[in-house]
Amino acid sequence: MALRDTLEFLLYDWLDAEALTRRPRHADHSRETFNAVLETAERIAREKFAPFNRLVDSDEPRFDGEKVILPRATYEAREAYAASGLLSAAQDYAIGGMQLPFLLESAANTFFAKASVSIGANMLTSGNANLLMAHGSALQQTVFAHNAFNGRFTGTMCLSEPQAGSSLSDVATRATPDGEDYESEPLGPRYRLRGHKMWISAGDHELAENIVHLVLAKIPDARGQLVPGVKGLSLFIVPKHLVDVHGQLTGERNDVALAGLNHKLGWRGTTNTLLNFGEGRYPVRGAAGAIGYRVGAPGDGLRLMFHMMNEARIAIGMAATMLGYAGYEASLEYAKVRPQGRLPGAAGKNAAMPQVPIIAHADVRRMLLAQKAYAEGALALNLLAARLVDEQHTGAPAGADDARLLLEVLTPIAKSWPSEWCLEANSLAIQVHGGYGYTRDFPVEQYWRDNRLNMIHEGTHGIQANDLLGRKVRMEGGRGLQLLTARIQSTVRRASDHAALQPWARQLEQAWQQVLQATEQAWQWAQVEGSPTRTLANAVPYMQAFGHGVLAWIWLDVATVAQAAAAQSTAAQGRLACTRYFFHYELPKIGAWLQVVAQGDTTCIDVPLEAF
Amino acid sequence: MALRDTLEFLLYDWLDAEALTRRPRHADHSRETFNAVLETAERIAREKFAPFNRLVDSDEPRFDGEKVILPRATYEAREAYAASGLLSAAQDYAIGGMQLPFLLESAANTFFAKASVSIGANMLTSGNANLLMAHGSALQQTVFAHNAFNGRFTGTMCLSEPQAGSSLSDVATRATPDGEDYESEPLGPRYRLRGHKMWISAGDHELAENIVHLVLAKIPDARGQLVPGVKGLSLFIVPKHLVDVHGQLTGERNDVALAGLNHKLGWRGTTNTLLNFGEGRYPVRGAAGAIGYRVGAPGDGLRLMFHMMNEARIAIGMAATMLGYAGYEASLEYAKVRPQGRLPGAAGKNAAMPQVPIIAHADVRRMLLAQKAYAEGALALNLLAARLVDEQHTGAPAGADDARLLLEVLTPIAKSWPSEWCLEANSLAIQVHGGYGYTRDFPVEQYWRDNRLNMIHEGTHGIQANDLLGRKVRMEGGRGLQLLTARIQSTVRRASDHAALQPWARQLEQAWQQVLQATEQAWQWAQVEGSPTRTLANAVPYMQAFGHGVLAWIWLDVATVAQAAAAQSTAAQGRLACTRYFFHYELPKIGAWLQVVAQGDTTCIDVPLEAF
Repeated sequence: MALRDTLEFLLYDWLDAEALTRRPRHADHSRETFNAVLETAERIAREKFAPFNRLVDSDEPRFDGEKVILPRATYEAREAYAASGLLSAAQDYAIGGMQLPFLLESAANTFFAKASVSIGANMLTSGNANLLMAHGSALQQTVFAHNAFNGRFTGTMCLSEPQAGSSLSDVATRATPDGEDYESEPLGPRYRLRGHKMWISAGDHELAENIVHLVLAKIPDARGQLVPGVKGLSLFIVPKHLVDVHGQLTGERNDVALAGLNHKLGWRGTTNTLLNFGEGRYPVRGAAGAIGYRVGAPGDGLRLMFHMMNEARIAIGMAATMLGYAGYEASLEYAKVRPQGRLPGAAGKNAAMPQVPIIAHADVRRMLLAQKAYAEGALALNLLAARLVDEQHTGAPAGADDARLLLEVLTPIAKSWPSEWCLEANSLAIQVHGGYGYTRDFPVEQYWRDNRLNMIHEGTHGIQANDLLGRKVRMEGGRGLQLLTARIQSTVRRASDHAALQPWARQLEQAWQQVLQATEQAWQWAQVEGSPTRTLANAVPYMQAFGHGVLAWIWLDVATVAQAAAAQSTAAQGRLACTRYFFHYELPKIGAWLQVVAQGDTTCIDVPLEAF
Repeated sequence: MALRDTLEFLLYDWLDAEALTRRPRHADHSRETFNAVLETAERIAREKFAPFNRLVDSDEPRFDGEKVILPRATYEAREAYAASGLLSAAQDYAIGGMQLPFLLESAANTFFAKASVSIGANMLTSGNANLLMAHGSALQQTVFAHNAFNGRFTGTMCLSEPQAGSSLSDVATRATPDGEDYESEPLGPRYRLRGHKMWISAGDHELAENIVHLVLAKIPDARGQLVPGVKGLSLFIVPKHLVDVHGQLTGERNDVALAGLNHKLGWRGTTNTLLNFGEGRYPVRGAAGAIGYRVGAPGDGLRLMFHMMNEARIAIGMAATMLGYAGYEASLEYAKVRPQGRLPGAAGKNAAMPQVPIIAHADVRRMLLAQKAYAEGALALNLLAARLVDEQHTGAPAGADDARLLLEVLTPIAKSWPSEWCLEANSLAIQVHGGYGYTRDFPVEQYWRDNRLNMIHEGTHGIQANDLLGRKVRMEGGRGLQLLTARIQSTVRRASDHAALQPWARQLEQAWQQVLQATEQAWQWAQVEGSPTRTLANAVPYMQAFGHGVLAWIWLDVATVAQAAAAQSTAAQGRLACTRYFFHYELPKIGAWLQVVAQGDTTCIDVPLEAF
């Protein structure tokens, strides 16, 4: 199936996107306007992104001492993207937006992620501006966010430091009030920042007039000490070039300097940088430090940043998904045209017969079906997550709160599951290509390299797993997990009405019961031991099982919709085949993962350090 | 543990390598001479290979129109390797060899694979020469094999063609008798070859005086037709430069031309080439075609080539293993020195406390222990395979024949299991490094890229799986599988004598029973259906389960030796931790794989083509 068809099925037949047009905010929209957006996105991605995906990989960003050099195609791709209005698609009409549901914005962005995941860093620009729309002052919104939506500025998120990647409590960037009048600055309380930020995507380039950094830093206490822990973190806007209250550049370069470009395994279309804040490379307004404007209250930085991080995590999940999808498409096309070998059995062994296309081989079909089940399943999950964002923003209050909480529980899965399994899909795409897949003459090796990042950035697999087992399944008295369980049970009930789906419904019910039991058993170990060490020791296997349970639910739910059309539609047959694949080949894997969780297995923590 | 210590444990404590010195062929050897070889290998690998592993990756081979350009370090590494005598380590004293057991030769080569898997293509040179020692004429041995062992020539294996990778019956390279006197050629019946060979490793370079290609081609029948199928294949020696009967170059360039270098994802220290045979680029001796000398009888080519392929498959397994080992070492070192975060629980959460090295985190320990279990387990398996080669060559007749057959069954696992799981180990090594692992400032991303080749070359995963389930477990009336089962039962019995190992012994016994049952059930489907299609549809999941069963056996067997020293030795504790990890985290995975095999699951073959 073409991506467009898969999207339309998921949006309209499965997620009832048209229901959103009955909400006041989206009342001007219709299936036709939604489709027009998809069509625009598909066209720009095809014309301006896809043809240059290999180029941005081989023509890695470089720094000439003054400026970052990127291929010309990157500029043109960004211009076309900004000109399409997609940067502000979900924003109010009043500020030039389209008031599109987030679901549609997400669906439109899949085309770009599939065409070239690394050309655009637009996801960070939107996330950055969305954070300011939620938590910034009115002037911060008009000066910084609106100019991100209209394409003049780009945005970053600056959390990690060289000594503190996953451990934000150890952030050492300092922000001190800039003069006695620091609070009277119209753009927000003005500070001077000094420190180093690592792994900053799109941290420096010439793609736009300005770069708006959102920076986590600590305000020293009265004795000049930084408050330990994440409670000491505050959030600051630090523009590369200073601007006035109208958003015009003042001509002053702020003291944010590129300290180095990271040379990565993949995802090379976007710069990834080490930035020095306030090191004196660009002294500004006669004092030391980069100028930054505080957003929100002191000490509230991490909470605000999570607004952006949660969005980014879902976007990473979608990026991983679309890389998986791209590899699936490429290897499917190859498998249909590449002749090789003959089928087993007497007739097939006749070497005088012509060779068959490799898609005729059972094992190649297995590798294709696995990719399809991984990528389309992950796509459904991520679109469901986007649909929950809409529910949270424009749904009725009770449903909106449920959606918020359900999203909290699903976010670690929406991020981690595609990162792991669509990477596996990309490896299978290489395998389908045989030796050719290992060369740079075919696109699949790049997809695989690009995708390897997704288990690392925006919170590693380990961080996601701790978040899921350590926090999300227990937050608000476990109500998020209960909501998810209720949804799963509802799918099980609906599936039980169809004879063909009944065995899978029973299988899912039992599997989810196992997940719930393991969750309880895992936390019983914490009571026994008086510490969560043993519980969290197997957080990753737990997340893997939980994720497979969620995806089995997604596929069964998709199947309840697809089964009605199965007789006439090959697309529906494909979806049912994925469901069958997932229940036969994938879901049975959870037993091995949950066993160590339930038993509080201490194998890994027991090994003496010297025994490694 | 340093590799050297692990090797010594496996060689002497586990595989009783010293027993080999009691055989006439190795009577001059002792543990001391063995260790001297290991020491030499370790030193050359450290000095001449390891420092250049990144260089050969970034300075990819290129062709200037005349010659292939490789980094200077590649020449020096090869010279040092050849000068060490390792190319002929296992050969007779009479031809300059050391009469070293194959086990020791394999162990010595691990250092090079770990230091830089792609600098040397020595494995192919040895394999090529070994084939000639087994099947070539006396003159072919002295002219081609001896000059490979002494370092003057290098060797290749030329099987695949652009239209025939995994399907050798479709080889289209033609070999026609060269003149009426073609049979009187002292170097072997002389033919003219025309065709294209793809994926030829070390297919062109200037590293040695000459390159000896071993080429599969078809001799046309009386009507000029090629015999379909593999029965039509014959084997030919095709040197790049022609030589006289004394092995001296005659000054005539043979018509073997480099048609192109493949630009690969990794493994870039070795050229990988498309070669044109007899296309007229280098016309030779006034007729068309590249000159080649037949080895063995017409039509016997594939059987002879398997001599080299089996060796190459085990060598690939070892290469994959050592990449896994290299990543394990690198990430272990990093995990010990990189501070990040604090332990869970009240005390750990105190942000004023210093950060801990990441090896303190349970999930990092899990990733390290998994790597250790994969890489050291695979190393043990591959050394066991090498030990079986020795048994086959120098053991008493009955044991030698058992060793031959056991090796037949284990070869697909020795090749496929490390290719899959040591690749996973490399991915975990990246994950332990976090963002740094995704940059080219650390070696682990290259290990991961290099390792991705191993599931493809020398027979893909799918080919290995068909070989295992379709042929090896049934050959000679299933006696190979029975031999393996007997070995496993013997380990189970020995392990049952130790209280600490009893539960694992029972677990292995049951797991292996499942593998045996699934084998039978799989073949019952062939009887039901009258064709092996359904049986072989799940050959890869079968091989995955079989492989995990074999590795559980290896680890339990290692544990029976290690457990005696567990009280005093941290190395022994590490081995027991790996065994525990493997039985708790890995072996339970086989259930999901075997289920589809036993049920003859047809999900993948049932999908209509249009439904993908």
